[in-house]
Amino acid sequence: MKSKSSVIRFLYAASEQSADLFYLSGVFVPDAYLSIIFRGRSYAVVSRLEYGRVKAQSKYNEVLLLESVRNEVAKAMRLELAAVGPAELMLYFAKQHKAEIIEVPGSFPSLYYAKLRDAGLKLEIGAEPFFPARAIKTDAEAQAIREGNAASAAGIRAAERVLRASKIEGKRLKYEGATLTSERLRMIIDQTCLAEGALAQNTIVAGGLQACDPHEGGHGPLKPNELIIVDVFPRIQKTGYHGDMTRTFLKGKANDAQHALVAAVRDAQKAALAKVKAGVSGASVHKSADAVFQERGYLTERQSESFVGFIHSTGHGLGLEIHEEPRVSPTGGRLRTGHVITIEPGLYYPEIGGCRIEDVVRVTKEGSELLSSMRYRWEIR
Amino acid sequence: MKSKSSVIRFLYAASEQSADLFYLSGVFVPDAYLSIIFRGRSYAVVSRLEYGRVKAQSKYNEVLLLESVRNEVAKAMRLELAAVGPAELMLYFAKQHKAEIIEVPGSFPSLYYAKLRDAGLKLEIGAEPFFPARAIKTDAEAQAIREGNAASAAGIRAAERVLRASKIEGKRLKYEGATLTSERLRMIIDQTCLAEGALAQNTIVAGGLQACDPHEGGHGPLKPNELIIVDVFPRIQKTGYHGDMTRTFLKGKANDAQHALVAAVRDAQKAALAKVKAGVSGASVHKSADAVFQERGYLTERQSESFVGFIHSTGHGLGLEIHEEPRVSPTGGRLRTGHVITIEPGLYYPEIGGCRIEDVVRVTKEGSELLSSMRYRWEIR
Repeated sequence: MKSKSSVIRFLYAASEQSADLFYLSGVFVPDAYLSIIFRGRSYAVVSRLEYGRVKAQSKYNEVLLLESVRNEVAKAMRLELAAVGPAELMLYFAKQHKAEIIEVPGSFPSLYYAKLRDAGLKLEIGAEPFFPARAIKTDAEAQAIREGNAASAAGIRAAERVLRASKIEGKRLKYEGATLTSERLRMIIDQTCLAEGALAQNTIVAGGLQACDPHEGGHGPLKPNELIIVDVFPRIQKTGYHGDMTRTFLKGKANDAQHALVAAVRDAQKAALAKVKAGVSGASVHKSADAVFQERGYLTERQSESFVGFIHSTGHGLGLEIHEEPRVSPTGGRLRTGHVITIEPGLYYPEIGGCRIEDVVRVTKEGSELLSSMRYRWEIR
Repeated sequence: MKSKSSVIRFLYAASEQSADLFYLSGVFVPDAYLSIIFRGRSYAVVSRLEYGRVKAQSKYNEVLLLESVRNEVAKAMRLELAAVGPAELMLYFAKQHKAEIIEVPGSFPSLYYAKLRDAGLKLEIGAEPFFPARAIKTDAEAQAIREGNAASAAGIRAAERVLRASKIEGKRLKYEGATLTSERLRMIIDQTCLAEGALAQNTIVAGGLQACDPHEGGHGPLKPNELIIVDVFPRIQKTGYHGDMTRTFLKGKANDAQHALVAAVRDAQKAALAKVKAGVSGASVHKSADAVFQERGYLTERQSESFVGFIHSTGHGLGLEIHEEPRVSPTGGRLRTGHVITIEPGLYYPEIGGCRIEDVVRVTKEGSELLSSMRYRWEIR
């Protein structure tokens, strides 16, 4: 059996974009840089612009200065300094440590993968996520996600207040004298999240037909008597963890079909939440939400160019990434204690509207623990 | 000579994270998906969650439905549906089009690069940027960057107003009854950017010693009589283009060393701006800023663990990415008409403070055109 010590692991990314890297480093770096893991120790190679900050704030065992390392590599490999790029650093470290295998994450840039492989090194692609421990959240991580959801809730609460304060004038909503649009409501939500220390991106405020396209952010005037989906998933700027909550509102008076749709989604969410427990599969959680819809005759199908019904999965893992392991989908595997997942069934029919209700739970041995909460009235007169 | 038609190009990324992909697609997609370029036509393969939106809003010649394509590939390659992932789609398309060479960007995930190469395909890594046209900005792109800078300026203007309205109380600044911190000023700036339709990330509000670490965002109370660097680089949410502006303030009374430092940085910026012109190298622009500092005796050097002086390059390309081609650094190549670059010299000395002043220009045949502007008084009584 091969000794683990002959494996060297490289990551090359910006920790702002790579959740794996932020998990390793604990510090946000905006530009790509090299991280090395060898014999259980972690190293960063960063430029003088980052050196002091990374040294002071990160979790690395050792922080190396890029400018010094490049000089060292140029000398050792007899290269011009200008020819020493990230691939040369990696070749040097692999050689220096007599590593037999280089392991990189699936997202590792092909530019360097190709160079290392062409240089005759043996490369392996690591599992996804690169640090499997990422999927199992500690108490501190669960708390950080709770804070993310508190920011989401603050944003949704702000939206609720605006809808409540708005007046219906014909087919428009008026707020503080102006027509209320998706864009304006989104801005108010995002500003509220910022005040909570969280950066919201792609906040969804989509009403009517727009709400039936789950990745449509919403644009233009919001209308009375239509279901409005508000989905807020900000990232806490300090910790990097996300919140993810959705509520569906209606300003005015809902009709019977809208009432029935919202009730079905709520009941599907309850059914799914009740099913969550360590050892249960994500697939069976999804199935229990789907069963509620099927019982009530809500079909999922293709209608010409679009899809209607329960057109997405019930949920996904949440953490440093907005979508991460595990999946709560028709093919979702076994849930484990410490998994943090969203439960967000939804129904979408152009003639009725779209509805999605989303909360976040942490999987426990006995069931689950809610990491988000916001009671609300969806119908706002 | 090999016909270009035998080359198939694949991109696999989220267009929110990949500037190349957004440049190709013109639509923000939050999760990674496959794009194909073959014989001058572009194709996207997206799931039903994205299909309608991408079809309606993107620049692709053709949008394919992932679910249908997967079925087709499973049948043609005699695979279980569950075994058809992105690599299998790429193998299928490469074979179907009899492509001899597969070209991918340097950032292409190694996971798929390795699978395609192991399957015996010939892969090449494309140039950086993958679409070289990205470096040369059209009038519309210059206008989008101008809007980005207008958002930056709005944010910086808000900061200036807050500093002006603040009162000096001992070693603290008081604003609306509370101690003014970097965090609070940053939040006000970022909220202002949001109101301008721009998402600001990593806004720098760093005073005193903190400002001497160029990637330190700033934290804790801001102090009187210290230089405060305010660097705002938001992304316009609609267009994806960035602004990038920096101003340095001081609340209270500046001493002689601070006056001289700010004057040197302003003059260095002027010297660099005057040098910019198509055909001139980024290196010579950097040199002209550096010359001002050298003339005045501002040394750049290592002091134990930190670096002082002019410790970064003069500027960088700006567009869909905050840092992109070309570089305005000691090794920067020839500037071309249509390049958009920042000009942001700075000086950093722990005993005086940090100062950086940044504007954005578009390179022209005769010189440059300013895409940012904000007159200001740096010393606020």
